[in-house]
Amino acid sequence: MRAAVVLFSGGLDSSTCLAIAKEDGFAPHALAVRYGQRHAHELAAAERVARALGAPLKIVSLDLRAIGGSALTGDLEVPKDAPIGSSIPVTYVPARNTALLALALGYAETLGAEDLYIGVNAIDYSGYPDCRPEFIDAFERLANVATAAAVEGRARYRIHAPLLRLGKAEIIQRGAQLGVPYGLTHSCYDPDAEGRACGRCDSCRLRAQGFREAAVPDPTVYSPR
Amino acid sequence: MRAAVVLFSGGLDSSTCLAIAKEDGFAPHALAVRYGQRHAHELAAAERVARALGAPLKIVSLDLRAIGGSALTGDLEVPKDAPIGSSIPVTYVPARNTALLALALGYAETLGAEDLYIGVNAIDYSGYPDCRPEFIDAFERLANVATAAAVEGRARYRIHAPLLRLGKAEIIQRGAQLGVPYGLTHSCYDPDAEGRACGRCDSCRLRAQGFREAAVPDPTVYSPR
Repeated sequence: MRAAVVLFSGGLDSSTCLAIAKEDGFAPHALAVRYGQRHAHELAAAERVARALGAPLKIVSLDLRAIGGSALTGDLEVPKDAPIGSSIPVTYVPARNTALLALALGYAETLGAEDLYIGVNAIDYSGYPDCRPEFIDAFERLANVATAAAVEGRARYRIHAPLLRLGKAEIIQRGAQLGVPYGLTHSCYDPDAEGRACGRCDSCRLRAQGFREAAVPDPTVYSPR
Repeated sequence: MRAAVVLFSGGLDSSTCLAIAKEDGFAPHALAVRYGQRHAHELAAAERVARALGAPLKIVSLDLRAIGGSALTGDLEVPKDAPIGSSIPVTYVPARNTALLALALGYAETLGAEDLYIGVNAIDYSGYPDCRPEFIDAFERLANVATAAAVEGRARYRIHAPLLRLGKAEIIQRGAQLGVPYGLTHSCYDPDAEGRACGRCDSCRLRAQGFREAAVPDPTVYSPR
């Protein structure tokens, strides 16, 4: 089986993405990036889910806090109960997916893999510039001039974004069919000390609505308020 | 003065690049990446040179060792006295410049800067795929679809690679005119415990030859052998 690198956070989207890479016939190698998240629960979830799906997990540290400019790296407050609009949210991390795909590309080149998976979504995350098809296409073009393997003709990199045009409910239905253990995944931007979801941030609300619309039982453990 | 982000290692090329950014009329912000280099002398040089050139220095940690595949991150031996050819050297780090430019892009967006400088060179480093004009062009296209500032029309990113088509002697002549303190810079891939240059790796030999051809006195301190 050919190897593929899957950018992986232990969240609902990237866990579904990993299951799709397996379904596509690849041996998925999960790559998680410790990028100065506000909480470590995300990486604990990544370890649980990767183990459950039988994928090796590599964790790379990248201190995006040093760059700043985002609620997710500690500079700004995570908004609660705010309308989910089309403007760019404060949880946007400057150039985050560019950095993550660069690391995935380096890891793929080291492994001899040509296929990269990223669970970005242009429907629910329409406000994030680096979750759009234009971004994915531009990165694929870059990958094929940036690496020794591509320049020497040993690799033709493909960036797979299988969730790009799916709504949250469709993602959950697809993942449920593939046996993704959603009870182990973690999506909340601002969990409590025990790692329970806040239920109020954008990510929690999109997730909860997705389970409702998909008519799939929601296994998320919410923080009592 | 407009801000610019300069990728910076404290080496000869990036120090010259920083001086050129100043000459171009920018207030340069140096960005160094601690990426699992074999030695810390490079970052000490970065601090010395940035101070001498009056630029603030930001250091971001990124553990490229976890990805592996290069002599510069500790996996392979640095070659000594080897012919400098056109094949891709073992000192190539998979997707390194893609990752470094991604971080520079994020930092630029946070600062409100639109100009990124990188001291890549397609003459002496013709073997590195991510030191070629095709790579720089592809990254510039990516930057302008990857970021909130570009998508919202607040920024039009430009990647400056002013050394791209210069030989080492031309770089040194240009830097000497601009007052780059080359005695503070560090280029060796494999220095001794005191940080003195080995004089035998590709980087040392290109540098020494550059000073000879430029007829500029070489201030490098070499390790006694």
